[in-house]
Amino acid sequence: MAFERSAPRTVWDGGSWRLDVETLTFGDGRSRERGIIRHPGAVVLVPMQETAVGWQILMLRQYRHALDQTILELPAGTRHWGEDWLPCAQRELREETGHRAASFVDLGQIWPAPGGSDELMTLFLATDLTPDPLPADDDEQIEVVAMPFADVVQMAQSGQIRDAKTVVGVWRTAVYLSESEK
Amino acid sequence: MAFERSAPRTVWDGGSWRLDVETLTFGDGRSRERGIIRHPGAVVLVPMQETAVGWQILMLRQYRHALDQTILELPAGTRHWGEDWLPCAQRELREETGHRAASFVDLGQIWPAPGGSDELMTLFLATDLTPDPLPADDDEQIEVVAMPFADVVQMAQSGQIRDAKTVVGVWRTAVYLSESEK
Repeated sequence: MAFERSAPRTVWDGGSWRLDVETLTFGDGRSRERGIIRHPGAVVLVPMQETAVGWQILMLRQYRHALDQTILELPAGTRHWGEDWLPCAQRELREETGHRAASFVDLGQIWPAPGGSDELMTLFLATDLTPDPLPADDDEQIEVVAMPFADVVQMAQSGQIRDAKTVVGVWRTAVYLSESEK
Repeated sequence: MAFERSAPRTVWDGGSWRLDVETLTFGDGRSRERGIIRHPGAVVLVPMQETAVGWQILMLRQYRHALDQTILELPAGTRHWGEDWLPCAQRELREETGHRAASFVDLGQIWPAPGGSDELMTLFLATDLTPDPLPADDDEQIEVVAMPFADVVQMAQSGQIRDAKTVVGVWRTAVYLSESEK
């Protein structure tokens, strides 16, 4: 059915993202509101180091208030509005894992929730890691855990890892590594 | 840094989801607001049919207002609050693709955006499809496209498909099919 959209109005602005709401009016006179999250985008990091026993991935155990639980996920962080992707990736990697990377490989982009948000995430494989920490955000509770990459692939496939960006980052990294070895 | 959380207040309620905001007050007296999307959850369908030339997947081309563009994605739909997953999956499959499935396989769950939302998605592989349409939602613009599954796997790996739930659903289906064939 055809409908008209009102101009959006901002009902909440948290600085890093905001909620805009518009009113849809249908041909039969009914109307309803639709909310759209306006978001500056985010980076997702896949920090990997080669060891004597194969590739290790740096994962986070992070307490997520929205879920009221600690989950296993890749390091990630919100962009500042207009910030370039690569400086954001290096900053978030240092803040969240205490390492910098000498090499970043672009693993493509994802929309985590395009039904109601314009957030776009850029994924990077980050290698050649060296310690170089930055202070973490003051409302984050994070623990870095190094895990065998093969185990994490298995957990992402099986559903044991539920964070969507992490599943995508792990899969694209597995494909990238298997193609590099050909 | 330690902080105190206020009780959440709802700043917008769209029926299918709402935005709650709480105030964090830090030990040094600073404070800021944090928004959390409260969401009833959603189903993601991977509708597949075996043909003479291999597996085909039913994808959607859907206009997404938040992005102001038409994207390629799997059928999906928001749960009613408290609705069981499987009836929701069958209803959304019929509404969005015009088919019902005789077989559903649970492909696990994902959080699309746990940094700011409690939305949980359950993914289902849907097979043994027969035509049995339900009316679509009146604000959706959807076209169903049957595509070779192998092509969609390639597009999800490469980044040509950007919708996160779709990338996860396609990967887990590829793993499931390869394990079934063993």
